[in-house]
Amino acid sequence: MKKLKEKEISSKTVFKGKFLTVKQDSVLLPNGEIGTREWIKHPGAACCVPILPNGDIVLIKQYRYSLKREMIELPAGKRNKNESFEECARRELEEEIGYKTNKLTFLTDIHPAIGFTNEKINLYLAEGLVKTKMNLDKDEFLELKPTKLHDALKMVWEGTITDVKTIIGLTWVQKRFG
Amino acid sequence: MKKLKEKEISSKTVFKGKFLTVKQDSVLLPNGEIGTREWIKHPGAACCVPILPNGDIVLIKQYRYSLKREMIELPAGKRNKNESFEECARRELEEEIGYKTNKLTFLTDIHPAIGFTNEKINLYLAEGLVKTKMNLDKDEFLELKPTKLHDALKMVWEGTITDVKTIIGLTWVQKRFG
Repeated sequence: MKKLKEKEISSKTVFKGKFLTVKQDSVLLPNGEIGTREWIKHPGAACCVPILPNGDIVLIKQYRYSLKREMIELPAGKRNKNESFEECARRELEEEIGYKTNKLTFLTDIHPAIGFTNEKINLYLAEGLVKTKMNLDKDEFLELKPTKLHDALKMVWEGTITDVKTIIGLTWVQKRFG
Repeated sequence: MKKLKEKEISSKTVFKGKFLTVKQDSVLLPNGEIGTREWIKHPGAACCVPILPNGDIVLIKQYRYSLKREMIELPAGKRNKNESFEECARRELEEEIGYKTNKLTFLTDIHPAIGFTNEKINLYLAEGLVKTKMNLDKDEFLELKPTKLHDALKMVWEGTITDVKTIIGLTWVQKRFG
């Protein structure tokens, strides 16, 4: 078996903004040469597939500035400091769609962009929803889109939903419970 | 309908490394306030599900420095300047696994990390493979893992494969042709 491992020689923070922390590391490559790796340090995130009592899934529509367009997504967000993935899932669910969940089931974890970030997203099914109140961040704007699983999956297979956490969350729910 | 759009007021490059370009923009939010958006400018990428004449899918094992571990993936890579997504798919396929394809079929496009990058990955099915020669980048090291579709999908549903392009490429091939 080929050795694939790359060892850190040194690591520095080259940009620290309001949202992003960018690292540039010098690494020892498997062939003994020195290489450079640049990556975004990410706290990890949680994403929920929220099922309303009538069976609808709560999708959201949100403007994504990096893409300059609206995207259809599942509710999700980054972990706060010292927050577990499950606590993050519960908090983001309530903040973004205004529901508490009485039954949170872990589905899987995913790595969205392994070439340049350590981000991991844990995906959960959120059932037993109880209405509370939305509490968006002050720079966060979104619309709720309750949707039948069948219709949401149609949007996946037609290529209308292209956000990876949303594609994978919906296909996992279909596989497990569909 | 709520207005969700965010308008660019100004944009600057806050880091330009060997691999990553980081932008920090000032934006007009839907509520009239000014906000900040930080994002990685990405050229886009292509990813192939390569099918060998015996039906095996060519997965690869690669050390991903940002995660400090090996990952099981489909071959993929970033677009070069002025390269189409399809040209990128053909080039990366040959460079990473050493095969040309006689039949490239578009599956779908995905957005891996919409919170902080404009990256889009086009996914293709690559059939009619003809052996040529691998040609890895000088800082790229990987192992080929020909795998039955059934076994690859088992790794997806068991959570062993967590790379999003690989999960979505494999489930699309199952859905379309499985």
